[in-house]
Amino acid sequence: MKLTILGCHSATPRTHTHPTAQVLELRGSHFLIDCGEGTQVQLRRSKIKFTRVQQVFISHLHGDHYFGLIGLISTFQLLGRRTPLTIYAPKGLKEVISLQLRLGNSWPQFELNFVELSSKESSLIYEDDTVSVYTIPLDHRIYTNGFLFKEKPGPRKLDPKAAAAANIDTAYFRKLKMGKDVPNRDGVLIDHTKVTLDPDPVRSYAYCSDTAFAPEIVPLIQNVDALYHESTFLQEHEHLCEATKHSTAKQAATIAKMAGVGRLILGHYSTRYEDLSAFQAEAQAIFAAVELAEDLKEFSW
Amino acid sequence: MKLTILGCHSATPRTHTHPTAQVLELRGSHFLIDCGEGTQVQLRRSKIKFTRVQQVFISHLHGDHYFGLIGLISTFQLLGRRTPLTIYAPKGLKEVISLQLRLGNSWPQFELNFVELSSKESSLIYEDDTVSVYTIPLDHRIYTNGFLFKEKPGPRKLDPKAAAAANIDTAYFRKLKMGKDVPNRDGVLIDHTKVTLDPDPVRSYAYCSDTAFAPEIVPLIQNVDALYHESTFLQEHEHLCEATKHSTAKQAATIAKMAGVGRLILGHYSTRYEDLSAFQAEAQAIFAAVELAEDLKEFSW
Repeated sequence: MKLTILGCHSATPRTHTHPTAQVLELRGSHFLIDCGEGTQVQLRRSKIKFTRVQQVFISHLHGDHYFGLIGLISTFQLLGRRTPLTIYAPKGLKEVISLQLRLGNSWPQFELNFVELSSKESSLIYEDDTVSVYTIPLDHRIYTNGFLFKEKPGPRKLDPKAAAAANIDTAYFRKLKMGKDVPNRDGVLIDHTKVTLDPDPVRSYAYCSDTAFAPEIVPLIQNVDALYHESTFLQEHEHLCEATKHSTAKQAATIAKMAGVGRLILGHYSTRYEDLSAFQAEAQAIFAAVELAEDLKEFSW
Repeated sequence: MKLTILGCHSATPRTHTHPTAQVLELRGSHFLIDCGEGTQVQLRRSKIKFTRVQQVFISHLHGDHYFGLIGLISTFQLLGRRTPLTIYAPKGLKEVISLQLRLGNSWPQFELNFVELSSKESSLIYEDDTVSVYTIPLDHRIYTNGFLFKEKPGPRKLDPKAAAAANIDTAYFRKLKMGKDVPNRDGVLIDHTKVTLDPDPVRSYAYCSDTAFAPEIVPLIQNVDALYHESTFLQEHEHLCEATKHSTAKQAATIAKMAGVGRLILGHYSTRYEDLSAFQAEAQAIFAAVELAEDLKEFSW
């Protein structure tokens, strides 16, 4: 999995900071997660091909998480896109986008689908051969979901020497990788585990923004490889969390620790902080593997 | 009048080019004209104070002219704005913005007014002590207005020496500047024209984007000091104007010449052109006083 941060700052876009948007890449698929104003320009800067993005996941309908979407759709259209686009978002976004397209008299020539979310339970919202995506209900001022991306196991890996030694015709290799036993050239059935290796371990990613401290999400994100968790504030401003329904770096680290995640990526910093290193220091007092999101930074695992 | 170009490129925002937005400043008032995606960041770069902007004029509901407005409103709100904001825009925009504010559960704490436009005749839509703003009906794919800003005459200018010689008490100076005759200290009525000078000549500005070649607007913009006219294409691509309802640089210059304007400012360039100097050259073959809009460039007259 490769995560490209397009923007990781809260509230308003500024000259050198961008509101929330990121792209998760997994075995050739690119998933856009949130889409603040200016996302299309950041996407250009990241060099990710626009047509690669076919699924968009919007956490909630505060502007810093979706105001860039209508512009992105319009640009896709201007560029002659033919690839379908599906948007998973809270109920209401379809109405906004549809109204804007209607007023501009410009319905896209590509297939534009909406999956409207309203359930407050975690549910499977997307699935293909490589990944399953589940919602993570979060605790924010309006209806908000995080997203859990769970890779599906890939094919088993052929052990070419063992397969040759077992005298298996190459025509059977694909079946072996799918976990089937096959006959060799002598008609002997060969146990696939003898000539293949286990697939790579599956990878996972949980995106949790925006949310107050919500330990109820821990069972959903248990042991994920990477957790992006918002940390709008430092602990010195914890008193602001209750009204705004945001988290501190310490709270994000506490969630990471409780869930035993592989690594914690912090983001959604309030514009009040000039120096972001304090976020890392505060979180690392609780949980060691902490990294700071930065616009256009990439993370791989 | 001072015009600050925030963006002057057509279609999609790119790393170094911005869609349409500009600010006209006149005797302390700042009028925002169109508001493409990213306008709030450009407004920051221009150093124009956000609260100075109290009137916004939106030409039409194609995204490159208004997708930045909801983000600007949201940012005004986050910054605790109390100053009212009034938006003059085609019918429909109020519904879009209202829906987005409702979905975000975040109606602004400042007064937000909409004046919805639907008339196809030029009409007076805004007026204060210093300026009148009229619509200029344009010929585009959807309902579109340009805007004509006509300054009102300022006060007459006191001739201090003449006023002293005429023995007029300073308490009467304000009345004199308003064009009233006043008594001097000897009780003699003094003709105000004897002790004051004519006010500065009034200035005017016409904004015409987006539009096909539309000579019917010429009587409305006759003799304006400055005309911003879109020139999406060069003449070599004139065949694209009919379907897209845009203009070439030559057509913009023809309008400028017919209307006898003081200066022509070109903009709304298609992204297909790398070198914009060809726009100026093409227009100057028709009309001499041509300048090119550039992002963050200022024009004064």
